[in-house]
Amino acid sequence: MNEQELKSLLQAIEPADAEAIAKAKARQLSLAKPPGSLGKLEDIAVQLAGITGKQFNSLQNKRIIVMCADNGVVCEGVSSTPMSVTLSQAMNMTRHLTGMSSLAKYTGAQVEVVDIGINADYSHPLILDRSMGKGTKNLYKEPAMTRQQAIDAIAVGIERAFAAKEDGIDVIGTGEMGISNTTTSAAVLSALTGLSVEDVTGRGAGLTDDAFEKKKHVIQTALQLHQPDPKDPIDVLAKVGGFDLCGMCGTFLGAAMKKLPVVIDGYISIVAALCACRLAPLAADYMFPSHSSFEIGYLKAAQEIGLQPYLDMGMRLGEGSGCPLAFQIMDCACAFTNTMATFEEAAINDDYLDQLKKGDSFTVKR
Amino acid sequence: MNEQELKSLLQAIEPADAEAIAKAKARQLSLAKPPGSLGKLEDIAVQLAGITGKQFNSLQNKRIIVMCADNGVVCEGVSSTPMSVTLSQAMNMTRHLTGMSSLAKYTGAQVEVVDIGINADYSHPLILDRSMGKGTKNLYKEPAMTRQQAIDAIAVGIERAFAAKEDGIDVIGTGEMGISNTTTSAAVLSALTGLSVEDVTGRGAGLTDDAFEKKKHVIQTALQLHQPDPKDPIDVLAKVGGFDLCGMCGTFLGAAMKKLPVVIDGYISIVAALCACRLAPLAADYMFPSHSSFEIGYLKAAQEIGLQPYLDMGMRLGEGSGCPLAFQIMDCACAFTNTMATFEEAAINDDYLDQLKKGDSFTVKR
Repeated sequence: MNEQELKSLLQAIEPADAEAIAKAKARQLSLAKPPGSLGKLEDIAVQLAGITGKQFNSLQNKRIIVMCADNGVVCEGVSSTPMSVTLSQAMNMTRHLTGMSSLAKYTGAQVEVVDIGINADYSHPLILDRSMGKGTKNLYKEPAMTRQQAIDAIAVGIERAFAAKEDGIDVIGTGEMGISNTTTSAAVLSALTGLSVEDVTGRGAGLTDDAFEKKKHVIQTALQLHQPDPKDPIDVLAKVGGFDLCGMCGTFLGAAMKKLPVVIDGYISIVAALCACRLAPLAADYMFPSHSSFEIGYLKAAQEIGLQPYLDMGMRLGEGSGCPLAFQIMDCACAFTNTMATFEEAAINDDYLDQLKKGDSFTVKR
Repeated sequence: MNEQELKSLLQAIEPADAEAIAKAKARQLSLAKPPGSLGKLEDIAVQLAGITGKQFNSLQNKRIIVMCADNGVVCEGVSSTPMSVTLSQAMNMTRHLTGMSSLAKYTGAQVEVVDIGINADYSHPLILDRSMGKGTKNLYKEPAMTRQQAIDAIAVGIERAFAAKEDGIDVIGTGEMGISNTTTSAAVLSALTGLSVEDVTGRGAGLTDDAFEKKKHVIQTALQLHQPDPKDPIDVLAKVGGFDLCGMCGTFLGAAMKKLPVVIDGYISIVAALCACRLAPLAADYMFPSHSSFEIGYLKAAQEIGLQPYLDMGMRLGEGSGCPLAFQIMDCACAFTNTMATFEEAAINDDYLDQLKKGDSFTVKR
């Protein structure tokens, strides 16, 4: 994909359907409850109506698209886990053995594992090969990737969202696996927002004090060295991002292009979502947060997009592990909207009381 | 039930199983993820192990016990909804037409609707008659009920928890329906904690400014008039509480007596939970929060018990509507704990790579 083609796709993204949103809000007010009393569950139902154009929604088919890639910066000692874990956990995801994939299996969500740049020679029948290379360059020393590579990696994400639409998926979740990707995410978030490295950098999977200081130093140095342009998300992603971040950014964009709801997981995911919003602000109409990641910086990125997460679980596993939880909440939003009574239906009238006396069943016909 | 019998039951409540908790914590550390990275999902799994004594749990059978009662104080104009709604919504719960009951149906949870003091002459085949009377007295003028009535209403809740155990229920949710019960809950919370009426009183289902001022005045006056003893939760419940609050308090206590996990819903529910904890501090071992209610005072009550809710949905419907959402989260906690790989199982070893080459299936045997 060249940059002009990407731009054309971005410009074609449409906003959510304002008329369907207005109707959905009116329907919420007609349901037998104090106005707004189901809070974000109501917001979810309204947002889904805006996306699908339908008042009665059901998210039957769910898929978590997991972008797996290595990051050259791992050699600077910014992670507590060796690079080889990226591949082994990608493989374990296909076996439903990881945190995210065990939850996905339980909740009936598909998991699509995409190699978008794992540093290994291998082949695996259940891992989709979309590799951009054996990991990125070390951003401490040089740009993580070229601008064209960033665009190509974004295109992979778009392609996978399009494939999900083709496969009849109703909602997409976003996940990742890539040792050192809290480092790249912090660098991207700092570059895009101007937030200090201190404000966006956490301990990831669990760093020692020394490694944590090193991580911040590496990010600060890379930002000074490469001077990514905050107004150009592709420049930021190319210089201090990762293939996984690019791919996830593409998934968010592709979901918006195809009018599919898409769920944000944790820190890496929300930074990718922010990149997508900077490339195409309307993409935010299609995004649903899940949980407030324990990783510092998550809430700042959420605020930038204007999102308030549903869950506060102190989670920081990544992989897409918040998506199955969010899927369930979204299912509940559909369920109450589709089945609870309007004020009219909730009225206990003579018909109902007659039925009651006769011992008939009491269900409202729909 | 007399007070001595209640005391004996309270004293028989046992703490969660410390050995099972230690084992569960060790198992969490053995799972292939950074320690603690699934946050409260891990805490839930550990707490459940402590309650059941088992390492592998599954909450197959769920029931929301809904205490429905009227409050005499409604005549002071402290609510935006007429008293008759208590009965009509109780009936609608049996039809799965309310917010909570539509969610319960969707998630497969049973709903048990208990009349513990609705102000109406009626009979309904699906509403359990445990009425303590046609609503409480007007607490603005006199104590809401007698001490013995409070004990009897608590006994109803205990009985329903025992019945749930008998019926093979694995987890209980707590719900309520009772116009004006944010007034009684605020009064009870203020009395128990010494928090100012201003700090614990919200607008409930949606009050005008004038009605809101009236509500606070009514609570303040009742507290001054009756001087409930903060060290005596039964005195507090009797003077400024409601039958629903007493019944829910009893459900929390009964769950602890029978070692059943029990979920807190919103404001009324957490005030009842706090009453239970004041009567029997060990009851907290069996409690699970759900969402942070929009109603002011919720978080203060949660802090008193030492609980951090899982969800932040801006919900304020009550009924028990947070319980189906929490059930799903608890199910996920069981699912990942039961199925994800240990570090040992997650190792990508020669056996796995051989299988891969042969095209065998890759599931870990358990």
